[in-house]
Amino acid sequence: MAQNIYDNPDFFSGYSQLPRQVHGLDGAPEWPALCAMFPDIGGKRAVDLGCGLGWVSRWLREKGAHSALGVDLSENMISRARELTPDAAIDYRIGDLETLDLPEAAFDFAFSSLAFHYIRDFDRLVRVVHRALTPGSFFVFSIEHPIFMAATDPHWIEDENGQKIWPVNRYAVEGERRTDWFAKGVVKYHRRIGTTLNALARAGFVIQAVDEFAPTIEQIKQVPTLEEELERPMMLLVSSRR
Amino acid sequence: MAQNIYDNPDFFSGYSQLPRQVHGLDGAPEWPALCAMFPDIGGKRAVDLGCGLGWVSRWLREKGAHSALGVDLSENMISRARELTPDAAIDYRIGDLETLDLPEAAFDFAFSSLAFHYIRDFDRLVRVVHRALTPGSFFVFSIEHPIFMAATDPHWIEDENGQKIWPVNRYAVEGERRTDWFAKGVVKYHRRIGTTLNALARAGFVIQAVDEFAPTIEQIKQVPTLEEELERPMMLLVSSRR
Repeated sequence: MAQNIYDNPDFFSGYSQLPRQVHGLDGAPEWPALCAMFPDIGGKRAVDLGCGLGWVSRWLREKGAHSALGVDLSENMISRARELTPDAAIDYRIGDLETLDLPEAAFDFAFSSLAFHYIRDFDRLVRVVHRALTPGSFFVFSIEHPIFMAATDPHWIEDENGQKIWPVNRYAVEGERRTDWFAKGVVKYHRRIGTTLNALARAGFVIQAVDEFAPTIEQIKQVPTLEEELERPMMLLVSSRR
Repeated sequence: MAQNIYDNPDFFSGYSQLPRQVHGLDGAPEWPALCAMFPDIGGKRAVDLGCGLGWVSRWLREKGAHSALGVDLSENMISRARELTPDAAIDYRIGDLETLDLPEAAFDFAFSSLAFHYIRDFDRLVRVVHRALTPGSFFVFSIEHPIFMAATDPHWIEDENGQKIWPVNRYAVEGERRTDWFAKGVVKYHRRIGTTLNALARAGFVIQAVDEFAPTIEQIKQVPTLEEELERPMMLLVSSRR
């Protein structure tokens, strides 16, 4: 079973204060780049893997999705998502992406935001998603960028000339990474970019586009702290098609 | 026109001593991973972009390729390649990948090793290759990994805890990078991984596999200095299909 850090009270109280939890999609700077990868959502049966508070499921319905299923490991998240959602065509379920099963050809669009780097067996999950989608369907997701999370101790450093740099090491050594983020010992799984993309290709997805989130000038004007995201790739956004 | 560093005598005398120039493909640790991406070469008309001394063109013919065209900017390289090649089905031509044109549907396999990071207009080149290949043909290439070359001053650093790290900065800022490598001011062009892959998809190629070269345990035993390539991704290998 995947680590359920989201139901740890300390974690959840910190995490709930993140801009993207308080402000929803407007608090997620990568959202415009991510939804630029979406197909026309009208009439689609969507599934959101690691749905959190359900912001994306509600957005998809506003854009005309036929229905949405949101799955998340966290009981906290799912119960909050249900409270926030006055829409009978959205179903939220508690589920572990590590062992999840989905019905065959039951969805026309699959999505996930910043969840898959918590999953040990990504290959299995990709096969489940492939089987659950109808032919031609898009599968769009974001993860923490492997360069953001590979290092044994990822934090900004100044080199001997005062240049601000992001450190990389252990890149080729895939597997568990433990980090402290609102709680001690949050477990993530590092995979190389190639490993993630090849899992998709192997399962039968065709890669449509790969984006490594970088803030726009406009975004930096509004939120100056985003400027450092020009220095390192923080998130990897992938669009693929069954 | 692309910078022709290879015909600078200082550069060429240093470069010629690299293991991969002296020992050919056996001196290139990524070669096994790269040729694992190749289709069956038998009967194929191949083109090698940035062919250098022609090691790959000769290898392709040994594996049964119908013919090979090697293109390189460097007169030094092309004249040495011709001397080394007793094979009338291999043609070497001096050509600039920045402005190269190729005949339509004239090739069944396109290859390039560590050349495209010298090219400013990768989009144009990808369209030229797409047009020059027959449907179903593979296009396999390697480049310096964007993480290897993005930083303003790429060199091994120790962090405050003595961890050996590879620095990343300016990752989202694409374009020219100047480095000193056998000569001063060698010009390379940094593109994000997404930019390279999206150029392929946009031109009509389907991405088959992405590999970020890492040495095997066996390779590290034979060449212990390769161990540091576990820390950072040094080369990006891409297989795509028209």
